[in-house]
Amino acid sequence: MEFKNEILANGLVLIGEINRSAKSAAVGFFVKTGSRDETEQINGVSHFLEHMLFKGTEKLSAFEVNEAFDRTGAQFNAFTSEENTVFYAAVLPEYLAEVTGLWSELMRPALRDEDFNIEKNVIKEEIAMYKDLPSFDVMERCRTLHFDGHPCGNSVLGSKESIDSLTAEQMQEYFAMRYAPNNMVLACTGNFDWDQIRSIAANSCAKWQRQTVERKLEHCEGSKKKKRVEKANLAREHICLMSAGVSAKDPRRFAASLLGTIVGDDVGSRFFWELVDKALAEAATMQFGAMDGTGVFCSYIRCSSENVTKVLDTIKGIFDNMAKNSITEEELRKAKNKVLSALVIKNELPMGRLVDLGFNWIYLEQYRTIEDDVSAIKAVTVEDVHSLIEQFNPGDFTRLSLGPAPHS
Amino acid sequence: MEFKNEILANGLVLIGEINRSAKSAAVGFFVKTGSRDETEQINGVSHFLEHMLFKGTEKLSAFEVNEAFDRTGAQFNAFTSEENTVFYAAVLPEYLAEVTGLWSELMRPALRDEDFNIEKNVIKEEIAMYKDLPSFDVMERCRTLHFDGHPCGNSVLGSKESIDSLTAEQMQEYFAMRYAPNNMVLACTGNFDWDQIRSIAANSCAKWQRQTVERKLEHCEGSKKKKRVEKANLAREHICLMSAGVSAKDPRRFAASLLGTIVGDDVGSRFFWELVDKALAEAATMQFGAMDGTGVFCSYIRCSSENVTKVLDTIKGIFDNMAKNSITEEELRKAKNKVLSALVIKNELPMGRLVDLGFNWIYLEQYRTIEDDVSAIKAVTVEDVHSLIEQFNPGDFTRLSLGPAPHS
Repeated sequence: MEFKNEILANGLVLIGEINRSAKSAAVGFFVKTGSRDETEQINGVSHFLEHMLFKGTEKLSAFEVNEAFDRTGAQFNAFTSEENTVFYAAVLPEYLAEVTGLWSELMRPALRDEDFNIEKNVIKEEIAMYKDLPSFDVMERCRTLHFDGHPCGNSVLGSKESIDSLTAEQMQEYFAMRYAPNNMVLACTGNFDWDQIRSIAANSCAKWQRQTVERKLEHCEGSKKKKRVEKANLAREHICLMSAGVSAKDPRRFAASLLGTIVGDDVGSRFFWELVDKALAEAATMQFGAMDGTGVFCSYIRCSSENVTKVLDTIKGIFDNMAKNSITEEELRKAKNKVLSALVIKNELPMGRLVDLGFNWIYLEQYRTIEDDVSAIKAVTVEDVHSLIEQFNPGDFTRLSLGPAPHS
Repeated sequence: MEFKNEILANGLVLIGEINRSAKSAAVGFFVKTGSRDETEQINGVSHFLEHMLFKGTEKLSAFEVNEAFDRTGAQFNAFTSEENTVFYAAVLPEYLAEVTGLWSELMRPALRDEDFNIEKNVIKEEIAMYKDLPSFDVMERCRTLHFDGHPCGNSVLGSKESIDSLTAEQMQEYFAMRYAPNNMVLACTGNFDWDQIRSIAANSCAKWQRQTVERKLEHCEGSKKKKRVEKANLAREHICLMSAGVSAKDPRRFAASLLGTIVGDDVGSRFFWELVDKALAEAATMQFGAMDGTGVFCSYIRCSSENVTKVLDTIKGIFDNMAKNSITEEELRKAKNKVLSALVIKNELPMGRLVDLGFNWIYLEQYRTIEDDVSAIKAVTVEDVHSLIEQFNPGDFTRLSLGPAPHS
């Protein structure tokens, strides 16, 4: 593995980790923008914009974009979160330059009015579709309740109303502000030629204009409110719990991630043995998510309406017990093995490695080898996890439940 | 890469491909048994048995099995198809021996009556759940219609009725017959020590008894019947098309796979441009599946009820046009790039490689490097694809549609 790094005069960061024994290569543009960077008026614009980038540039039609990816056989896509918009592709090494050139062009889209108007309907259908998925809907509602005014509570997709009222001009303004080169990282992994990628970036991206880009960073302790929403046609109770955690810059993020695994891995965790194995709940998981300036533990539980009280009592028992320094060496060791094998297996593939390489730069402005992360995980002690529990008290959570109306 | 191979006296095949630069390792038991090896009376037993293997052995309870996997941090699971039952795990290299030992023990399960009775309900819930997924239901119904008495038309999950009437004794008999060592392959990939795996297999598996195992192998041309099933609450028409193709042993399987991509890849294919891009259908894909002694092209199309006639006409047009030797060099080149990048990226990870290594042995009793497959794909010509179309005529298909009752 060899790490390469260069920053263009306009602020665009180029990073690459070369693995000569890899059989494929991957490339991605990481744009540090997401729903937390939106106002209420333009909520959903980051995700909408992600769609619009596939509609082409002044020179390329949507058809030509599609054809251009198709020629290379690339596995390509994009995703938008509260904090980032990422465009990526995995290809055979001989096509990496071509695909990098293509993405570089697409980062300066035409944003045509007619495409904007057609795509609006696609976005609204996507919103409707996700509203129909209770496991997604409950998370999104809980996030809004937990962050309670903090921008991390903004919906990624936006609402039908915010999308309806969004104008093409608002999108263009947002684009000009947020897709500034100094707010983006171009990353490559796998088997590729660094000099070739550098010269493509220099040709295509050096002319982009630097902008002043800001993001409000505040830790959020969470509202700790409790709320239940009734929804017709639901057969099950869907429960989401959220509590505060450390930020993506905090060295304790590894301990937080292990805590999530101990409590809520889908198999073999405390939630699993107390809730799923005992058939109180059909699903019960907890995960830690580190964010920019803050962090969140998020649990999802699905159970029958009759079991809700018992489930909530059991969860209270689990967290009360954990607050008494009850985590064992054996539990931590198992969690480390899970987290380590997931990390190593994911990073073994250039496409998986790309995501970690890119996010490490986005959040830390730092290159970390897989070995750095492996060592950091191995070094976490039971005391580290206990002190995290003491400070953040994951048993003191925001709770949103989505379930059927009581039988009359 | 180094290939290792040994056959125990009882017929169990051990194969391994060592990749010293891999960061993980994977292991799998490939059992050459699936729904096509079942009679109507015991339909669903292969899949049910797959579940039962996680319930433990004479020495290990289900809890202990779970704990044992958990300790290693393994990513593990199993799946059953018409032809195979596969148990697999991906782990950090230092845990491969432990996980291989665990799987080896689990291959001789206790099959306890009480577990059998409890798991029956889990299986029936799974059947009900999949019945609710129209895209799955339409495929399964079409498979039965297409194979029309040929055992490849048997449902993998079985029916509520067949599972209800299945007895623990029938399962034990089936197990004794089909999980014979000479009907199984133990495969390892990634970074591991071959001698260690060999000695684990020798210790745990050498005592298993060889059996006479049979499977009926017949090519199936397909019934070419057409049928529509009405289902309340459906909002869309789900259409499945099936036609015959070459078997997994046939060298033309690579050309068949490319043909599937040209016609029905989810992006950039003929179906895509004619049906999805023109908004006639929401989804339209075709894939080729090579099987033991036969093969099948399978298409799935989802559209609104109003568009059905237009969709079927368009599909007829696509196949009529293809029968006129219309596939271009450029189309084939794009399809090759897609198939090659999917193949190479999948095989880059020990877990992905495991599946191809195991199936190559199951179907061909042959070791093939990734390079062998890459070369075979690159060598396919437009003429190869045209002669496949001429022989198998994919436009002459079995069709099953699942859709709402007409508006009254």
